[in-house]
Amino acid sequence: MKLIVDAFGGDNAPLEILKACAEAIIDFDIDILLTGDKKKIEHVAKEHNISLARMEIVHAPSVITMEDEATEITKSKSNCSMAEGCRQLVAGNGEAFISAGNSGALVVGSTLIVKRIKGIKRVSFAPLMPKNTGNFMLIDAGANNECRPEMLHQFGLMGSIYMERVMHINRPRVGLANIGGEENKGCQLQIQAYQMLKESNLNFVGNVEGRGVPDDAADVVVADGFTGNMILKVYEGVAMVLMRKMKEIFTKSTKNKLAASVLLKDMKELKKSVDYTEVGGAPILGAAKPVFKAHGSADAKTFKSAIRLTKEYVESQVVELIAKSILSDQTKENS
Amino acid sequence: MKLIVDAFGGDNAPLEILKACAEAIIDFDIDILLTGDKKKIEHVAKEHNISLARMEIVHAPSVITMEDEATEITKSKSNCSMAEGCRQLVAGNGEAFISAGNSGALVVGSTLIVKRIKGIKRVSFAPLMPKNTGNFMLIDAGANNECRPEMLHQFGLMGSIYMERVMHINRPRVGLANIGGEENKGCQLQIQAYQMLKESNLNFVGNVEGRGVPDDAADVVVADGFTGNMILKVYEGVAMVLMRKMKEIFTKSTKNKLAASVLLKDMKELKKSVDYTEVGGAPILGAAKPVFKAHGSADAKTFKSAIRLTKEYVESQVVELIAKSILSDQTKENS
Repeated sequence: MKLIVDAFGGDNAPLEILKACAEAIIDFDIDILLTGDKKKIEHVAKEHNISLARMEIVHAPSVITMEDEATEITKSKSNCSMAEGCRQLVAGNGEAFISAGNSGALVVGSTLIVKRIKGIKRVSFAPLMPKNTGNFMLIDAGANNECRPEMLHQFGLMGSIYMERVMHINRPRVGLANIGGEENKGCQLQIQAYQMLKESNLNFVGNVEGRGVPDDAADVVVADGFTGNMILKVYEGVAMVLMRKMKEIFTKSTKNKLAASVLLKDMKELKKSVDYTEVGGAPILGAAKPVFKAHGSADAKTFKSAIRLTKEYVESQVVELIAKSILSDQTKENS
Repeated sequence: MKLIVDAFGGDNAPLEILKACAEAIIDFDIDILLTGDKKKIEHVAKEHNISLARMEIVHAPSVITMEDEATEITKSKSNCSMAEGCRQLVAGNGEAFISAGNSGALVVGSTLIVKRIKGIKRVSFAPLMPKNTGNFMLIDAGANNECRPEMLHQFGLMGSIYMERVMHINRPRVGLANIGGEENKGCQLQIQAYQMLKESNLNFVGNVEGRGVPDDAADVVVADGFTGNMILKVYEGVAMVLMRKMKEIFTKSTKNKLAASVLLKDMKELKKSVDYTEVGGAPILGAAKPVFKAHGSADAKTFKSAIRLTKEYVESQVVELIAKSILSDQTKENS
């Protein structure tokens, strides 16, 4: 299997990306096609003694940054490493594309360059998030601010297939992010999406309130991108503030420092368990070929785990299954 | 000053409510008008040796429960203690009304019985929430799922007046809950509301992302009720899961238990600092007279603090100031 990797995506590119690729090639027995500035890649590899064996480089002179508008990927930055990665994917020069760069740009690149699966209304940004035990998928978490009910239905379908095939959860519980338990709760969007999800053959468990999101209420939490992004970031913010306050307590006196030293290992694990950047990333579901967003802050270890998840994303044939499932839905509608 | 209190609102009614009232009468030098089943109130007071001095009881035979539809307050439950409280407020038999009962019903009662301030589009449920230091107001947190931009503008105005007058914050920072910092972020609702808030004479600090909400990004966070309720409950859920996991760590071994005992006092304070039920409650802003929602789980201590906040809500003339401010906005628009 050959995977395409954006060598210039994320805060720690290209060094940590190259390290991750070199390890992944050995551990997962794959080939890698890197996109990005060829000379720089070769220079960094040489400087850090990283072997480029089984790596091919396709030159791309520019980089789309976090500050760039997402749509620049097909405009002023069409020669960036991320755009080149998308084009290499379309050309069939690799089976999936991974980038730790600008999420919005990757969504635009997936939509306009890789294109959508036939019948899919919108590609979605679908991060894996920590819950009480294990992970859930939040879909959509920011690719589509304003949604129609049928989009939410498709998000549920795509999330369910991914969680079943890649995360090995049997009959994933699909929940609708909402502000009450009853089926008439929420705005028109939620009320209508509820009915569509209820009538689907997904394992729909009804509405999931904010309180239930981090507490294992569902394996797939369906939301419009605005709501999903708000959930993602409030989650992150509350966890961050709480962990910081705890740190203040742990360091405020010698007595506390001593007590904290006993708990240190457990507390570090706790911190990891609520840190969504530990989980691995977010597939861009609905794209016609597998595209995976690794965390912008990914180091070699995290990026390697994103490569592993992407490999499983390819092997488990999520894209093909989504395409088949959408086709069968449409056949039913037309019959 | 005489305040009207729903003796049968909340999980701990009427006992904890009566206890709180008896203490508040002495400590705050106020009179109280209780609504609810007269015989039951007298019985509970006698049984627990609670003085009913300076308390008047207006009989109301039924109670609107958490399970009742909010709109039943003007229908099958129009003889409930909450509806009677609203009517007593309208009749001028007290200066404000406090209930720990069904929030939705209190919003409906405020809108249909107490009625709105002239020019106010919607009353809002506006809880005080803990942030990094102190509190912020989340407005709206569930009274109005679908909003127009001018409603969000009014929420900002009302929240700002409340935080300045009752919480004594000079020129409160008003932020718009959104999924990015730039002014073109979000859905049409946010984009338009941003412009209205920017052009207002509020101390508008721009968009507040989910991450900033618990981290002191603003004193007033403006949102449509759907988004606000999601923020409220994700906040609560993440804090709850984290505190529970911490408790697991603290009790998992003798060694940990010992270490935790040193930190116990600080940890209890931390737990309190993220528990929004500790803050006091939520004014129903926009109602023509002061209505205050105490937490459903309020005990005597928390309910007494809600009475104190309500007294300040009356004294600081928030309702009058909102009315004046809306009138001046409208005069400007028409000139």
